[in-house]
Amino acid sequence: MDNAATTRVDPRVSTAMQPYFNNKFGNTTSLHSFGQEAKMALDESRKMIAGMIGSRVEEIIFTGSATESNNFVLKGIAFANASRGKHIIISAIEHPCIIESAAWLEKLGFDITRVSVDKFGLVDPSDIKNAIKKDTILVSVIHASNEIGTIQPISEIGAICREKGVYFHTDATQTLGKMPIDIRQLNVDMMTASAHKMYGPKGVGLLFLKRGVKIDPLLHGGGQESNMRSATLNIPGIVGFAKACEISLKEMRDDDKRISQLRDKLLNEIMKIEGVELNGHPEKRLSNNINVRFSCLEGESLVLQLDIFGIAVSTGSACSSHKLQPSHVLMATGIKQQEAHGSLRISLGKWTTEEEIDYFIKILPEAVKKLRKISPFK
Amino acid sequence: MDNAATTRVDPRVSTAMQPYFNNKFGNTTSLHSFGQEAKMALDESRKMIAGMIGSRVEEIIFTGSATESNNFVLKGIAFANASRGKHIIISAIEHPCIIESAAWLEKLGFDITRVSVDKFGLVDPSDIKNAIKKDTILVSVIHASNEIGTIQPISEIGAICREKGVYFHTDATQTLGKMPIDIRQLNVDMMTASAHKMYGPKGVGLLFLKRGVKIDPLLHGGGQESNMRSATLNIPGIVGFAKACEISLKEMRDDDKRISQLRDKLLNEIMKIEGVELNGHPEKRLSNNINVRFSCLEGESLVLQLDIFGIAVSTGSACSSHKLQPSHVLMATGIKQQEAHGSLRISLGKWTTEEEIDYFIKILPEAVKKLRKISPFK
Repeated sequence: MDNAATTRVDPRVSTAMQPYFNNKFGNTTSLHSFGQEAKMALDESRKMIAGMIGSRVEEIIFTGSATESNNFVLKGIAFANASRGKHIIISAIEHPCIIESAAWLEKLGFDITRVSVDKFGLVDPSDIKNAIKKDTILVSVIHASNEIGTIQPISEIGAICREKGVYFHTDATQTLGKMPIDIRQLNVDMMTASAHKMYGPKGVGLLFLKRGVKIDPLLHGGGQESNMRSATLNIPGIVGFAKACEISLKEMRDDDKRISQLRDKLLNEIMKIEGVELNGHPEKRLSNNINVRFSCLEGESLVLQLDIFGIAVSTGSACSSHKLQPSHVLMATGIKQQEAHGSLRISLGKWTTEEEIDYFIKILPEAVKKLRKISPFK
Repeated sequence: MDNAATTRVDPRVSTAMQPYFNNKFGNTTSLHSFGQEAKMALDESRKMIAGMIGSRVEEIIFTGSATESNNFVLKGIAFANASRGKHIIISAIEHPCIIESAAWLEKLGFDITRVSVDKFGLVDPSDIKNAIKKDTILVSVIHASNEIGTIQPISEIGAICREKGVYFHTDATQTLGKMPIDIRQLNVDMMTASAHKMYGPKGVGLLFLKRGVKIDPLLHGGGQESNMRSATLNIPGIVGFAKACEISLKEMRDDDKRISQLRDKLLNEIMKIEGVELNGHPEKRLSNNINVRFSCLEGESLVLQLDIFGIAVSTGSACSSHKLQPSHVLMATGIKQQEAHGSLRISLGKWTTEEEIDYFIKILPEAVKKLRKISPFK
């Protein structure tokens, strides 16, 4: 129930990766047959993923993670376009890798605007329009929140950015593989995604980078990936990413239908518990995401209590689980600090069964009741 | 015969990685048991590698590649210490990821000194001493050249940097796993290494980062790796890296003895060919490395000719194989451009057999003869 943190690698994916560890282990930049064999696997993988999102083949840049792609975009656009302007716009509910990259650039003299969201976590496109200045070089808005699952009006924001001549990036880490993505329809110049959120391996991400975008590399070196991302290419990882995309293309629609039915059943039962409220948007949200707040409860205690029963859930994003601050995403939606602390994120996956949902429904109310009894918040 | 480009993953390594794809697939930052299981694997891996090089456990930072580690060091030290000084010293024979990172920093206003090498590719420690200025913040010298295999006097250079109060980094990508490394004896503040050069997986590297070094992250975000390198940790890759280290600790000595004997046998035979000269140092070199130049010959043609016979070798580094410029490393040793173009790198591995060496010895002279017949350089 914590598939937004990471997912089990699909056995078909790990099987596809296997030959590239011990047999087809060449370096794509080598001239000899071993290198060319690896290069072919790279080309095939890139073609697969480009086909999936409707981009040109050469617009897919493989990276090591969504975090790397997001750092690449913010810093690469900033340094390459500083002479044109130093203003960057992000939303208040971005992933920490966007927020922290922006904060670092701010220390170096860049000007960062953080656009607020409504109580559902939605960015208003007109707020982006109003925030764009003469020296704005980049707008970055997350496609769907990793915490509350709210899906943003990316296409609309993109149209505004295009009209104003400002680069637009979206972090689609939580959406690729969960909903169909047509890169042209999204109106983005750059898009981040990650394999391990969609039943692929950890350690591989990508950046869709539209032809002609002026950006500095984050990783300089041997000149791989059209000089945009140096480092020996992680071919097993890339082959796994492509396989995960191939599978999701075929099965996403059916999986999504089943997952959203299970999600609705679970959410329906959870809402029957006393003192519970939904975080995020009631409709414009990821089909696998539930985020709720319980009154008089500590989210972390609930996570640990459910863990005893073998149920894995999260308070917010995995990244912020060890921090004591309340979630910046929940705070941005205007809820109080104590309510944010009482929040729980439940994220279903393609292997979630009806039995697991029933088990969860059985365990959760008891766990909530038990913790409220000993809560200091009463 | 191209093990410096990349290596076959040891089957014991891929076996060790396997459970972390489909079973123990948690995210290390999750609070629940699945996350803690992944966290334990991370801790064990870090302990293994720290023990191998004699560092503190918390001084090992996992990255996605040696390229990332090297970019991290140059840019991270530059930005974090710019108020103290903007001068950085590298050697003329660094890997492209050091050279290109330095060139990028130069464009931003940093001052880069490239220290030259002698005809064997050796850096003279007194040249480093003389190059250090009041505003020098970093010295970076590769441990052993990826092209010509020359091993640098890292410990001596480190002692000079320590005395002068300048941070010292070495890129040990070609040495970890091939020779014993005692991090304290090397006198370094930072050291880069990579798994895929030592029978581990692609997509995982590390940085030894001495406690107290003032450095900015390259990847900002969720705060993993003591806030020094954000991104979901690639646990299968890290477990594989640790396993590769464990194996090399046990077997390195015997492997190295056997490899250097095979190397000497091969080199001895190659030197009998007319018009051939050794590149790099006759003794201070990696035990698996041969780099030679043939007169009246194009190295690339020789690589392709040998490929027909199933022999994989390289002209220089894998990274520069597709570029038309002669190797900057060979040029730095003072040889002529045409000689550089006639160079061949042969790098043995732990699975190289005597039969393979004998086969190579049989094929090579004929290949050289054939190509010289049609060479335009006569």
